[in-house]
Amino acid sequence: MNQLIHTPAGVRDIFGDEYKRKDKLMSNISDIFSTYGYQYIQTPSIEFYPVFDKDKGTMHESRLFRMIDGDGHTLVLRPDFTPSIARAVSSYFAEETLPIRLCYKGNVFLNNAKYRGRLNESTEMGVELINNDSVEADAELIAMSVDIMKSAGIRDFQISIGNVAYFNAIAEESGMSEEDMSYIRHLLGTRNQFGAIEYIEKLNIDHRSKIALTEIPTLFGNETILDKAARLTSNKDAIASVVRLKEVYEILKEYGCTQNVNFDFGMLSDYSYYTGIIFQAVTYGTGDAVIKGGRYNRFIEKFGKKADAIGFTTIVDSLMSAVERQKLSIEPPMDRTMILYTAEHAKNAVSIAVSKRAAGEKVMCVPFPVVGSIEAYIDNAKKNNCGKIIVLKGEDEQIIDLQKVED
Amino acid sequence: MNQLIHTPAGVRDIFGDEYKRKDKLMSNISDIFSTYGYQYIQTPSIEFYPVFDKDKGTMHESRLFRMIDGDGHTLVLRPDFTPSIARAVSSYFAEETLPIRLCYKGNVFLNNAKYRGRLNESTEMGVELINNDSVEADAELIAMSVDIMKSAGIRDFQISIGNVAYFNAIAEESGMSEEDMSYIRHLLGTRNQFGAIEYIEKLNIDHRSKIALTEIPTLFGNETILDKAARLTSNKDAIASVVRLKEVYEILKEYGCTQNVNFDFGMLSDYSYYTGIIFQAVTYGTGDAVIKGGRYNRFIEKFGKKADAIGFTTIVDSLMSAVERQKLSIEPPMDRTMILYTAEHAKNAVSIAVSKRAAGEKVMCVPFPVVGSIEAYIDNAKKNNCGKIIVLKGEDEQIIDLQKVED
Repeated sequence: MNQLIHTPAGVRDIFGDEYKRKDKLMSNISDIFSTYGYQYIQTPSIEFYPVFDKDKGTMHESRLFRMIDGDGHTLVLRPDFTPSIARAVSSYFAEETLPIRLCYKGNVFLNNAKYRGRLNESTEMGVELINNDSVEADAELIAMSVDIMKSAGIRDFQISIGNVAYFNAIAEESGMSEEDMSYIRHLLGTRNQFGAIEYIEKLNIDHRSKIALTEIPTLFGNETILDKAARLTSNKDAIASVVRLKEVYEILKEYGCTQNVNFDFGMLSDYSYYTGIIFQAVTYGTGDAVIKGGRYNRFIEKFGKKADAIGFTTIVDSLMSAVERQKLSIEPPMDRTMILYTAEHAKNAVSIAVSKRAAGEKVMCVPFPVVGSIEAYIDNAKKNNCGKIIVLKGEDEQIIDLQKVED
Repeated sequence: MNQLIHTPAGVRDIFGDEYKRKDKLMSNISDIFSTYGYQYIQTPSIEFYPVFDKDKGTMHESRLFRMIDGDGHTLVLRPDFTPSIARAVSSYFAEETLPIRLCYKGNVFLNNAKYRGRLNESTEMGVELINNDSVEADAELIAMSVDIMKSAGIRDFQISIGNVAYFNAIAEESGMSEEDMSYIRHLLGTRNQFGAIEYIEKLNIDHRSKIALTEIPTLFGNETILDKAARLTSNKDAIASVVRLKEVYEILKEYGCTQNVNFDFGMLSDYSYYTGIIFQAVTYGTGDAVIKGGRYNRFIEKFGKKADAIGFTTIVDSLMSAVERQKLSIEPPMDRTMILYTAEHAKNAVSIAVSKRAAGEKVMCVPFPVVGSIEAYIDNAKKNNCGKIIVLKGEDEQIIDLQKVED
């Protein structure tokens, strides 16, 4: 492999129309963040290792890119934004008790040497709403997720909502070990429902817990599933977790987005920092969720500030894949002008370009050899999103309207 | 040091109004790129080591962040965009002979463990114009640099223009060694004029070359310096390099930006890949140049494509520093609305927010305790760029106009 031509496996270049579509997608998401009152924070790509270590429960350590700095500290390329923002909030907003709305965009890095085909560097955009434990906060982030999917042009999508507190409360009450809980969480998280049910059946726990737990993978569907979930348990915390989802659903009615929402109690996240509601946006054309989020009321205190919080992240490259596979992408406008000029018209070409740019036009100046054929330039102008070519040659000023030129 | 609160030395968080100002600055620069017909390319933050090795002459190897991938390849966090774009162009535009206009924005990484206070991660935005060796290409990039400085609100700045071919031609003709040339380039590059003159005086070279070379540090000023430079030498290539700058200056008149331009033959770059014109934008409030660029006609072929090219990069964080120190920064607009609501108004608050957002307004919903004092919220709303607060409490809907509330 020629390392001067290729990029490392799992990262790639984006340019041309693909870049423009990604840029438009990201700018739409930014507008949504802004409309809901979120303010951007930029955190460094490189952080001290403890921000992302095992104790923070975000990413398996083997998947971190690590480096050593000049003083011998271990540094990490961020695999996730939430810990960086938890660090920043603990530092700059240590005394703030009112809600803090932060958003971010940037790249995250995973060292997936063993998983070719999965990006090592991918773009994420997300929000964190801190110091706000309200039902409205939960609903706001779900409504924003719906807005993001719609802004990407996706019509056919669902936001699946779960609550990790339901499984946790019932599992804890049953007296099963931490290891058993963690293993069942893993089985359900990887959608191995049969494995999970089989494992639960064999546990030495009380009958009612066992029934509730084995039913969890079937607790999937519209809001009627909430009553079923409540009937399965008498555990106070588990019932409270269902009531919470009902309250969120009531607020979602105000947002007018209940048709894009379903419930899934078997959805449990890899991220052990979630404490309550979790949700993800799924659509066809991509295997993974394109938005993932949830409430993490005990995470920021690991960085020094006691604060409730909820957040989500949009995996922009996955959302792009979905848009492209669903053939929803929009062609960029042919809004540029190419000025093609022979040497004696150089000053004239620049002068025309200057006045057109002053009027807001997009203009590219391209020198034209006296003996040149215009055909090659027509093709090039189209590739560059030009709608017309102005040719300055000899005595003539010719204008070619590319909308009227056949491919 | 608490590694859970601090960022590593040399990187930092940007948020609040500072982020908004940086974002606005970057969006103005993007508009300029677009107006001149440049198209974005996104390259990975991580590349194979050979893209940036010593042979490419961009950055000293000790300043690269290196990692090893699963297959034992050495990877590097990019210290500079130009080599990545040279790689991409050699790959995707291998057969293209017409001009290619590419631009980029993103972060570069330097392992400056020994230079505290200099950022390890900094944002750059720049352009590369490939397959175009014209005088107009040189002038275009200088005119764009002027536009960028003006778009940042900076009134007092200069674009210094040099031509590395002038020094190179005279030095080569004198028969001095590569090492001597490289050392003089280093002395002039670090603005050690006296050291350079002293060193040149001692060289065993012909009288005329010696005079021309010792005069180089004084060849600084407006366009009249060009005639002086031409008179100092009879070397064909050196004279051609002066004629080139005269031609560029003629085109710059068409752009109406000659008052922001001066010439400096003693300016020589650290980057050995430059072959012709080089330029940089300087202003007060920052020690370094905020834009650096030049022509590199023999660089891309190291990646496999023979192509003339010229490019520049804007060091966005340095430009930001200059803007802030010159007190030119603009306050972000107070264009948000805070809806402060007690629990019984939750649905009403969401419903008002939904309709305001649909009308394009920026709205943040904040729960309000029945016993709360409004004062703390007024302060918080101002910090969040809110122009007004709508209070939903009891029977009342009260509107507080923050433009009229004293600090």
